[in-house]
Amino acid sequence: MEKKIVIALGGNALGADIEEQKSAVANTAKVIVDLVSEGYKLIVTHGNGPQVGMIQDAMDYMQKKNLKKIPLPTCVAMSQGYIGIDLQNAIKYELYKRNIDKKVSTILSQVEVSKDDPAFLNPTKPIGKFLTKEEAEEHEANGIPCIEDAGRGYRAVVPSPMPVAIKELKTIKTLLDNDHIVITCGGGGIPVVNENGKLVGTNAVIDKDNVSSLLASKLDADFLVILTAVEKVAINFGKPNQKWISEMSVDEAKQYINEGQFAKGSMLPKVEAAVSFVQSGNNKKALITLLEKAADGIAGKTGTVIHS
Amino acid sequence: MEKKIVIALGGNALGADIEEQKSAVANTAKVIVDLVSEGYKLIVTHGNGPQVGMIQDAMDYMQKKNLKKIPLPTCVAMSQGYIGIDLQNAIKYELYKRNIDKKVSTILSQVEVSKDDPAFLNPTKPIGKFLTKEEAEEHEANGIPCIEDAGRGYRAVVPSPMPVAIKELKTIKTLLDNDHIVITCGGGGIPVVNENGKLVGTNAVIDKDNVSSLLASKLDADFLVILTAVEKVAINFGKPNQKWISEMSVDEAKQYINEGQFAKGSMLPKVEAAVSFVQSGNNKKALITLLEKAADGIAGKTGTVIHS
Repeated sequence: MEKKIVIALGGNALGADIEEQKSAVANTAKVIVDLVSEGYKLIVTHGNGPQVGMIQDAMDYMQKKNLKKIPLPTCVAMSQGYIGIDLQNAIKYELYKRNIDKKVSTILSQVEVSKDDPAFLNPTKPIGKFLTKEEAEEHEANGIPCIEDAGRGYRAVVPSPMPVAIKELKTIKTLLDNDHIVITCGGGGIPVVNENGKLVGTNAVIDKDNVSSLLASKLDADFLVILTAVEKVAINFGKPNQKWISEMSVDEAKQYINEGQFAKGSMLPKVEAAVSFVQSGNNKKALITLLEKAADGIAGKTGTVIHS
Repeated sequence: MEKKIVIALGGNALGADIEEQKSAVANTAKVIVDLVSEGYKLIVTHGNGPQVGMIQDAMDYMQKKNLKKIPLPTCVAMSQGYIGIDLQNAIKYELYKRNIDKKVSTILSQVEVSKDDPAFLNPTKPIGKFLTKEEAEEHEANGIPCIEDAGRGYRAVVPSPMPVAIKELKTIKTLLDNDHIVITCGGGGIPVVNENGKLVGTNAVIDKDNVSSLLASKLDADFLVILTAVEKVAINFGKPNQKWISEMSVDEAKQYINEGQFAKGSMLPKVEAAVSFVQSGNNKKALITLLEKAADGIAGKTGTVIHS
């Protein structure tokens, strides 16, 4: 049996505009195809923070032209097209250059959340670019709350509820079983609630690491790889006794979490997503590292590995 | 063997904004699930003329905010998300209400065209809404040619090259073989050219009826259903000797085409797409009719059937 890896790409790593995106996905594709050529089955997820913010901005502009408001879940659906197709073509081209005959498919994917999730009362997930105070006020006037982000400017924030179910799981499984590389759950998936059997989009952006963890456990994957901006997770971050962590058990990770070692909205949700996946079955491992260290990390040479 | 139907929905029939779209897809879903419950395997394609024009408008606005230009093929990819997810959920809800357990999947799909297609020198496909003269001039300044449309106002036009290959055909087949209803080739597919093995988006919108015809022949479908705004095709349209056509052979259709019976950019491409599909194999039929007459048309009771 080929081992399965769910690899979660950060939205920030995909570039600030379409041209940056095209070079970012070309780099990403090399890493993904490296893993494919080592015999792994790959499922690729990605964030969409900057991209969905841009799309929402653009759609709000159309509202000024007397169009009906385009809701955020529709913007997430659009971001899956915006990002997915470039990612798919970059992977496909990398496969072509290495003479590997494998299909790559991108499917629109929805993730169910609970309408009672407390996150709806407390929007925390930043989307879009940094804003001036004036731009932030304009967003607030459009019903989009903003926060001041650690002196770096303002950003729009939206609710980020926990994922409950991935609605296209059978589609993903079918394509995987037929040897496709599958790009899915883009932007954390299109957020939906189930209203008496009807899936209805809801105003949120789901954390892509949480969704990737759920997806990896439902697919019975062997590895969850969460890519980030550092090679390893640290404890005592930024302090004289800072220490890079090469591996930690679920129990150790939980202890560090209780100690408040990981920053909210940054490393904390990644470690939590990793822990949740490792706990979902036997012999499961999660890796947190840089894109370019993914293969080395899976080989046990670097990164932070979370194990049971 | 279950019979296969490719059903092509018009972009105009999907509504002018997101609210109209939601009611349009609910109606469409009933027709699609009627056919599913009669035992057909369904592949659903759709146009995106009004929608992709809106998205392009919105993205051009972001350019004014110093973002890089978002090319038209990316807007087509976004339109597949914008339309596909509502269509998928409407079909899924209709299946749920009738207690039918069937998956519905929407895949991002690309269609290859030839970079030498003469259509690139002569943009003819209208996208977006009707424009004032001033708006048309603004579009022209953004590099989007416009035409004056029969006294009804101005519209942006883009090249509409012929489809050469559907890049995600194996994905579509795999999902069909696993009993999914597949939504694909939205907006005629994301237009791409093959540059030495690399798929690169190109500035075009492919006619969804032509793509649906190609798709139906590649899937060896039994029926191609092209939905339009009239119940039947007419000859001598608008004249005293106007005649509604209930069925025509490929030879008859070709003769009518030669006589100039069908309007360019309207009924002509539909009849041509129908003829092309019927000629692609044995016992293939195409149907041109209204959405609400699709089931009756397949049963031979109405619409215009094109046969060999």
